[in-house]
Amino acid sequence: MSAALSDPRPAAPSASQARALLVDRYGSAEAPAGLLLNDTIAGLLSHRSVRAFSDRPLPEGLIETLVAAAQSAPSSSNLQTFSVVAVENPQTKARLAEIAGGQKHVVEAPLVLVWLADLARLEEIGRRAGHPTDALSFLETLFVGIIDAALAAQNALVALESLGLGGVYLGAFRNRPVEVAELLGLPPNVLGVFGLAIGHPDPARPADVKPRLSQRLVLHRERYDASLPQAAVEHYEAALRTFQKGQGLPEVGWTATALNRVRGAEALSGRDRIRDALAALGFGLR
Amino acid sequence: MSAALSDPRPAAPSASQARALLVDRYGSAEAPAGLLLNDTIAGLLSHRSVRAFSDRPLPEGLIETLVAAAQSAPSSSNLQTFSVVAVENPQTKARLAEIAGGQKHVVEAPLVLVWLADLARLEEIGRRAGHPTDALSFLETLFVGIIDAALAAQNALVALESLGLGGVYLGAFRNRPVEVAELLGLPPNVLGVFGLAIGHPDPARPADVKPRLSQRLVLHRERYDASLPQAAVEHYEAALRTFQKGQGLPEVGWTATALNRVRGAEALSGRDRIRDALAALGFGLR
Repeated sequence: MSAALSDPRPAAPSASQARALLVDRYGSAEAPAGLLLNDTIAGLLSHRSVRAFSDRPLPEGLIETLVAAAQSAPSSSNLQTFSVVAVENPQTKARLAEIAGGQKHVVEAPLVLVWLADLARLEEIGRRAGHPTDALSFLETLFVGIIDAALAAQNALVALESLGLGGVYLGAFRNRPVEVAELLGLPPNVLGVFGLAIGHPDPARPADVKPRLSQRLVLHRERYDASLPQAAVEHYEAALRTFQKGQGLPEVGWTATALNRVRGAEALSGRDRIRDALAALGFGLR
Repeated sequence: MSAALSDPRPAAPSASQARALLVDRYGSAEAPAGLLLNDTIAGLLSHRSVRAFSDRPLPEGLIETLVAAAQSAPSSSNLQTFSVVAVENPQTKARLAEIAGGQKHVVEAPLVLVWLADLARLEEIGRRAGHPTDALSFLETLFVGIIDAALAAQNALVALESLGLGGVYLGAFRNRPVEVAELLGLPPNVLGVFGLAIGHPDPARPADVKPRLSQRLVLHRERYDASLPQAAVEHYEAALRTFQKGQGLPEVGWTATALNRVRGAEALSGRDRIRDALAALGFGLR
């Protein structure tokens, strides 16, 4: 076994480092106290999406490591309905960047993993066995594929961040799923759910931890609480403006941006037609 | 800050421990070599679904810790379209177990987290702002909620396993989503995507690492390779039978079980009707 025991994480976070992470994540007014912390959890709390990569090459064995982490995530009924395409070819990345609406970090990243909801593998195994696979044509089974792909991808992201690398998901591949399928040679019943651009973070263009909504708005005890306290929403507005200021971004807050993104079909960048695209890709959606 | 720096992970895995993990995960014929390993990655590779829990109480601060980890996962356009209900009440757990088809570990687990695709929060924020939210009625936006929930839940699972706890996802909540919504008081436009039963693993009933398909069947380079080498499928059959034997389970392999699960609508335990259920829950699915 040539496994390299590389890049051990630093020592467990101190209490003050932990507090700083939680203030970054929630703002000082809403940062929870009394959390359980270790290196792995500190790593999760430290996540930031990286869109600026250096040209430092990726380590040998990275792709296989990320796929092993991904496959170690749970899979619904162990159906293993995800696959992944590892793209390093500059021309393919350029085309993916264009499909994603001109996201230049897709080209800059040395590696793009495209996570697939893959119902074709079971279809082919059924064909070889002479066994019906009619349940693959239901919307539920596409959900299974999407969930399997998401759980897998998140494990890969956790793994790569633990190695000091950075990444960002690329949901915009769903703007034009048929073109992604053509580019990557996907058979029917396979959807590119999202991409993950991966590289060494460029130290000259660092990303910060983005604040999230207060746990008061997200965590419910025993039953859903629909009261949505306005004060917590306003604390979040303030925390996100502070983040935006620190990143040199326009201080537009969250509410206006999020509401603009869900205002109507025209805000969905083509994803309002995803049912037609899925039908074209062979999904039954029953 | 009262953050407890608890349960530091053991020292980095040795090469022989790493090899053993990979043989468990892939079988000896298909175990990849040359992977990059550290404690976090070793933790990911060690995942096993735990369905047998001891009655040892959960640590203080666990739920807030898991939610902080969950919210630290990426969110599509930062829309934060997931919520989570933490269920500890025995009556509610008993009802959830029944909805899930009588899964007794749902009762045995001291905590069940129900992960929600939550489009209601943005709908309410839009209502308060007098802003349209028509894009919430598209199938794509439900995908966003499902993906946000899955990424978040997987971070929570990684966090709880790093603390020595165990868990198992409960996809069977999708068998009867309207009943889950009624039980938990979910407003329209909120779907219980899956549950996560959590507790201390019962040392008397240990779970093993379940093998997965060879990377040859899951990882594609540059373009999708549909050849699906039969030898790799057969290696997997053998690895899974070895696992089943070790767990005292019937040695049925993978292909027959997986194909039985996708044979047709009758194998979906009610999930063939999920479109009707989603419509009843208020989702537009346009």
